[in-house]
Amino acid sequence: MKNTFSIAIHGGAGTIRQSEMTEERKDELQKCLRTAILRGRHILDNGGSAIDATCAAVVEMEDSPLFNAGRGSVFNSSGFIEMDASVMCGQTLAAGAVTCVRNIKNPVLAAKALLEHSSHVLLSGADAESFSRNHNIEFEQDDFFYTEHRYQQLKDAQKKDRVQLDHSDENDGKFGTVGAVALDKNGNLAASTSTGGMTNQLPGRVGDTPLIGSGNYANNRTCAVSCTGIGEGFIRAVSAYDVSALMEYKGLSLEQACKLVVHEKLHKVEGMGGLIAVDKSGAVSLPFNSEGMYRAWLTAGTDIQIAMYKN
Amino acid sequence: MKNTFSIAIHGGAGTIRQSEMTEERKDELQKCLRTAILRGRHILDNGGSAIDATCAAVVEMEDSPLFNAGRGSVFNSSGFIEMDASVMCGQTLAAGAVTCVRNIKNPVLAAKALLEHSSHVLLSGADAESFSRNHNIEFEQDDFFYTEHRYQQLKDAQKKDRVQLDHSDENDGKFGTVGAVALDKNGNLAASTSTGGMTNQLPGRVGDTPLIGSGNYANNRTCAVSCTGIGEGFIRAVSAYDVSALMEYKGLSLEQACKLVVHEKLHKVEGMGGLIAVDKSGAVSLPFNSEGMYRAWLTAGTDIQIAMYKN
Repeated sequence: MKNTFSIAIHGGAGTIRQSEMTEERKDELQKCLRTAILRGRHILDNGGSAIDATCAAVVEMEDSPLFNAGRGSVFNSSGFIEMDASVMCGQTLAAGAVTCVRNIKNPVLAAKALLEHSSHVLLSGADAESFSRNHNIEFEQDDFFYTEHRYQQLKDAQKKDRVQLDHSDENDGKFGTVGAVALDKNGNLAASTSTGGMTNQLPGRVGDTPLIGSGNYANNRTCAVSCTGIGEGFIRAVSAYDVSALMEYKGLSLEQACKLVVHEKLHKVEGMGGLIAVDKSGAVSLPFNSEGMYRAWLTAGTDIQIAMYKN
Repeated sequence: MKNTFSIAIHGGAGTIRQSEMTEERKDELQKCLRTAILRGRHILDNGGSAIDATCAAVVEMEDSPLFNAGRGSVFNSSGFIEMDASVMCGQTLAAGAVTCVRNIKNPVLAAKALLEHSSHVLLSGADAESFSRNHNIEFEQDDFFYTEHRYQQLKDAQKKDRVQLDHSDENDGKFGTVGAVALDKNGNLAASTSTGGMTNQLPGRVGDTPLIGSGNYANNRTCAVSCTGIGEGFIRAVSAYDVSALMEYKGLSLEQACKLVVHEKLHKVEGMGGLIAVDKSGAVSLPFNSEGMYRAWLTAGTDIQIAMYKN
């Protein structure tokens, strides 16, 4: 066992515009990012697995109403919440994911249960919920998830949709995701991602978050990646796996591969957002092409870094 | 416009064992493969698009009770049919896909409608069905899809599951998919894939077929790919996109990339099945690691080739 580890987390690239950010909200967000990454660090520092560390960090963000995942999930066009999540293990390439699930407190734990207890990788809707109940995953009533802020976002988005042809740059707050990637002391990589989707999206819409290779990927040969942004671009560009392929097949560094995927390849499919990644040596990269991305990262023995915008 | 085109189709890698194949059934299967590829060829020969050609070939196989897609779909463990399909355009990287849909006569046409008319790539379940109804996609009653043969397969699989620990090589007939890949006279590539999933699978299970990069992928820079087999392996290996990445980043030929993905990388994740692929020059590759794969292929000016087993 080496004495080195790394972890990076994100709280979404669909951030509040810098001009509209209050000091109070900034403090709240940074506090939650800090708590989440500390949960992951604690596990890694004690020799725990990258899977457990990334799931613990994601659970912390799912439990906060501040982020668009779990409790703070946004409303779809029918006025209810559907969530997606996935987990991948870089050592075995085992993966688990759920899509379009309702009322699961921590969808990332349902995804982890699938990874551990099923030959299937991806389950959807009511059937994913049944599987979760059978594996003692916690459920909550609708009012646990309801936040006035998210409901107001839906109403705003629905109003804007009617005039969106004239104001097509109104993407603020319409997308977001939480995710974590880690390298543990055993040299294993893992990635976990969770989302409530996009405000006012069609019910039944599946974004990149639960799709292995698109929004989430881990492989001990290369890296672990978790994406956030408008999911369709990440699906069409197969972004998470693309970072790994560029490293393995083209010999790019993590930094080079991440930049190419986010700043060139994603642009070609009109993709907006960012990703976090950690490679097998523990290096971390967190590029984005949106105004900001809530993020935090650390390696063994260094201080926690927290950032929200480009500077 | 060049005077060259190519098309390849498959009817699944979960084939009937050679020892159990009757001459009559062989004739029926070959006849349907021939009709399907001729529908695609007709469109390509007249200057039509690779998307239209691949969808037409897939529709023909969906309409046949012989293949596990559309009308001939297998039953899940709850005794009903859920279907998946996807379509991708190599020119624009636009894609559309549906998962866990019921009663849609041709799921590949629902996927094509999504590609053409939605900003979303992937819709699931009842919501994908609503979208399809709004776009005049044809629906059929349950009895249209019911075949005694498929129902018997479910009963057999359910019996075998109880003893599967002792007979774990009993995979015959448990999986299958149909798909088509083509290069059109304008130099555009496309891939279309459709499936009824695996006999006795959990309801709500999503395989590789509707997942861009896993079971279906097309990119004019490299190739178009459609996979068939036990989907979870193709998801974990991101197989369809991997063929493209090996060509683009590592300079492999289509043949080399396909062989590496099917005979090495898929094995590492215990994946079983095969894929069909066509590259931007019109070359075709159809490797599989199972006993057989129903398949047909042709290029402009050559005869149709049809094969079912290794020889």
